[in-house]
Amino acid sequence: MFPKNCWYVAAASQEIGRTILKRTIAQEQIILYRTEAGDPVCMLDMCPHRHAPLSLGRLVGDAVECGYHGITYDCSGKCIRIPGESRILERFAATTYPVADCWGFIWVWLGERAKADEKLVPEPWHWQTEPGWCPLDGYVHVNGHYQLLVDNLLDLSHEAFAHKNTIGNDAVAETPCTTTVKGDTIEVFRFMKNCQPPKLFVRAAGFDSNIDRHQKITFYPPCFVAIEVWAAPAGTGDKRLIWWVLNALTPETARSTHYFWGLPRGFKQDDRELTDQLRVGINRTFGEDKAIIEQQQLILDRVPLEKRSVFTPADQAPTRARQMVAAMLNQN
Amino acid sequence: MFPKNCWYVAAASQEIGRTILKRTIAQEQIILYRTEAGDPVCMLDMCPHRHAPLSLGRLVGDAVECGYHGITYDCSGKCIRIPGESRILERFAATTYPVADCWGFIWVWLGERAKADEKLVPEPWHWQTEPGWCPLDGYVHVNGHYQLLVDNLLDLSHEAFAHKNTIGNDAVAETPCTTTVKGDTIEVFRFMKNCQPPKLFVRAAGFDSNIDRHQKITFYPPCFVAIEVWAAPAGTGDKRLIWWVLNALTPETARSTHYFWGLPRGFKQDDRELTDQLRVGINRTFGEDKAIIEQQQLILDRVPLEKRSVFTPADQAPTRARQMVAAMLNQN
Amino acid sequence: MFPKNCWYVAAASQEIGRTILKRTIAQEQIILYRTEAGDPVCMLDMCPHRHAPLSLGRLVGDAVECGYHGITYDCSGKCIRIPGESRILERFAATTYPVADCWGFIWVWLGERAKADEKLVPEPWHWQTEPGWCPLDGYVHVNGHYQLLVDNLLDLSHEAFAHKNTIGNDAVAETPCTTTVKGDTIEVFRFMKNCQPPKLFVRAAGFDSNIDRHQKITFYPPCFVAIEVWAAPAGTGDKRLIWWVLNALTPETARSTHYFWGLPRGFKQDDRELTDQLRVGINRTFGEDKAIIEQQQLILDRVPLEKRSVFTPADQAPTRARQMVAAMLNQN
Repeated sequence: MFPKNCWYVAAASQEIGRTILKRTIAQEQIILYRTEAGDPVCMLDMCPHRHAPLSLGRLVGDAVECGYHGITYDCSGKCIRIPGESRILERFAATTYPVADCWGFIWVWLGERAKADEKLVPEPWHWQTEPGWCPLDGYVHVNGHYQLLVDNLLDLSHEAFAHKNTIGNDAVAETPCTTTVKGDTIEVFRFMKNCQPPKLFVRAAGFDSNIDRHQKITFYPPCFVAIEVWAAPAGTGDKRLIWWVLNALTPETARSTHYFWGLPRGFKQDDRELTDQLRVGINRTFGEDKAIIEQQQLILDRVPLEKRSVFTPADQAPTRARQMVAAMLNQN
Repeated sequence: MFPKNCWYVAAASQEIGRTILKRTIAQEQIILYRTEAGDPVCMLDMCPHRHAPLSLGRLVGDAVECGYHGITYDCSGKCIRIPGESRILERFAATTYPVADCWGFIWVWLGERAKADEKLVPEPWHWQTEPGWCPLDGYVHVNGHYQLLVDNLLDLSHEAFAHKNTIGNDAVAETPCTTTVKGDTIEVFRFMKNCQPPKLFVRAAGFDSNIDRHQKITFYPPCFVAIEVWAAPAGTGDKRLIWWVLNALTPETARSTHYFWGLPRGFKQDDRELTDQLRVGINRTFGEDKAIIEQQQLILDRVPLEKRSVFTPADQAPTRARQMVAAMLNQN
Repeated sequence: MFPKNCWYVAAASQEIGRTILKRTIAQEQIILYRTEAGDPVCMLDMCPHRHAPLSLGRLVGDAVECGYHGITYDCSGKCIRIPGESRILERFAATTYPVADCWGFIWVWLGERAKADEKLVPEPWHWQTEPGWCPLDGYVHVNGHYQLLVDNLLDLSHEAFAHKNTIGNDAVAETPCTTTVKGDTIEVFRFMKNCQPPKLFVRAAGFDSNIDRHQKITFYPPCFVAIEVWAAPAGTGDKRLIWWVLNALTPETARSTHYFWGLPRGFKQDDRELTDQLRVGINRTFGEDKAIIEQQQLILDRVPLEKRSVFTPADQAPTRARQMVAAMLNQN
């Protein structure tokens, strides 16, 4: 159902610590915690003995003690205690997964352990920890399939209708975009010359006349969309607004998604009031997407999207993205 | 699952106007609105592009603009705008349905357009707009299959037990009825001589002694039951109470029904207090039916009614009605 | 799905009387009431006419009148009235079940009537009405399969981890137990010498030093576990604490259980404050089990317990118990 040989964002870095966090990622129920040394650990949330959830247990040093019969596993999954029993068979082990603590997020790898490589984390996320930049992140839970959010982000013409009060302007629907496959990624580029600035752009950078707006969207299969954005007073090239919109669309179940977003910016880095305004503005924007996508999912439960017969020019990238993910699933 | 070549009441006439109303009728999700000229429009609640619900969009004149990517359809379903695209293929169309604004209700036709004919609206509904008569209507949502409500209304012996405090008297269970198939309809007739008046009849017409009670029930497949009622002091023929109970039992899903009822009366037409009493009384009565039928549905989810082996004489009409609907489904 | 030729506790004895009580037992929806003479009656909660629930009807003497069309059944299920109809066919009958009012509980038998025998009620329940003993009973609803509760009670090593604040001590996990099949029952015995007293034992019997703790668990298929418990100051044999924990784990559905418990005790019989403390302590303890088992059930919905490959020595009794129940199901 979901590609397994890939990273998924499972949490914001600061979410996990010395208490057990329980979460469902790509239909696997996992637990996350940190060792006493601070290293992240990811384990299946199931004691192999009687299938009780380890999330009801407790940490004993770096190990997890099941809350039912006290069976204890170290952070590699190895069983180190069965109360009342001295022999411990090797197969009596908890399932663990590779995990990376990278650029402000916790990434987990649910597929083949040998293939897990931190270098496969999509590169633009580094902007969240870039010196001189101001990081920002947030989370939205969406009751819809993650690919609906990929579709959404690869066709930003919707900003003109769904996000009129934040990041949408008419230009984003009217300006044609170019779609290019670059290796394992898809790039969608749109340059909007001499257009009205969206409301959130005005609030962020104080534009008082038309702008040039740059929007470069890159899709990293299966569920990452990074958008490089800048805007300048029309014709000046003075990039007063410059940020990335980083979207990690982690599947939770076949009908729900963990939407972890980042918005690192390269201007007014120390303006905390702006940071708060952007948090509010982005949460509002993605809340507008959530409202549409959750209704769309309810319709798709009955009428699959595959049955549609009509396409717009802007559908090129989302369609290609779905083909890439289908190819990944065939490889799994 | 449901007959399609027939009218269904989708709303009370005054419910729809210049905002989009969303409703599920016979498992189709539709939207209803009026054009600027006041004509009703019925459309599938799905943009053919990405299956977003049109109910999240907005009216632009007589057209609907999808709230996701701004694609716009006129009230005939024809696509009149795709932002960023000048060519519009003919197949890029929204689905519309025939709709009638008739006798106080909005009727929709989900089947073959060519067969939709306003003359097929069941005739007794005209009493709701009959000069000199007082109309009344209401709505109850019932979590049960619409045919359970048809069964209910074609065997009114249940009034004696379920509706003791409103329209039930012992006579309705004890008096035999005659069942006659008349063309495409079924008529059930019961005349109760010299019986105790039900409580709501006393409140409505002030009976202070026994009455003669006339009850003629007509079933129009698949989901309409019209009941002609009069009552007179026993032996006098003085019809002090005369009304129709009009029941449109619109299927919503396989387990739920929109119960639109009407109660036009031909006496005390200007007595607004009586109108209010009747509204309360009928809502109470149909609420009693709802309570039984919702529990009955839960049992039928596990034990189908087809498996029953016992029948009463009063089951003749409901059984025949189900055969008529089965025949309609075979034709569809 | 569930054994039928066995007793199930359906209610506490004082729960049923002259109003109709509705309950689901082993996926059958039943009603319970008492005749005017006080005898318990158990009937399927379904009128054979139109499958309305009899629980919406009313008692007329010892009979039940359906609330829909007034059809009436005596307490043997025989139809004694069809309004408007004088002939009553014999097959027009409600379904009844054998029922026993025994040792403080109402027991129902959903299988072959001829096999129902009150002597098959598990014998230890008599302690609830033993002269000189103090009875106590309670109820917990658990959203989990009843066999998970059988597993739970046949491997009490979990007390050391799940019930640290009431009946758990380290000894119960560390002391080996012996498992013996005795005819149709399974006995698990554990004697914990010179161990720390659990907190609830201290509150109940005032132990101020180590104790000897006796625990004899007997499983009666399919869903009864009786635990004989005593404790004495270590080495004295002075059984200051002596009680039975009686567990009737009645299946409700495939995912839920009526947990009827009893705790008759043979000491401080008149100490009402202790009775209240024990009620609170046992409800807390079984609430802790409920929390684990409901989560365990959610995992088992996806990963069946049959797939597990690891066992502890304490799994012997639960494994054998499941085999016994499987054999019962094969006989049914």
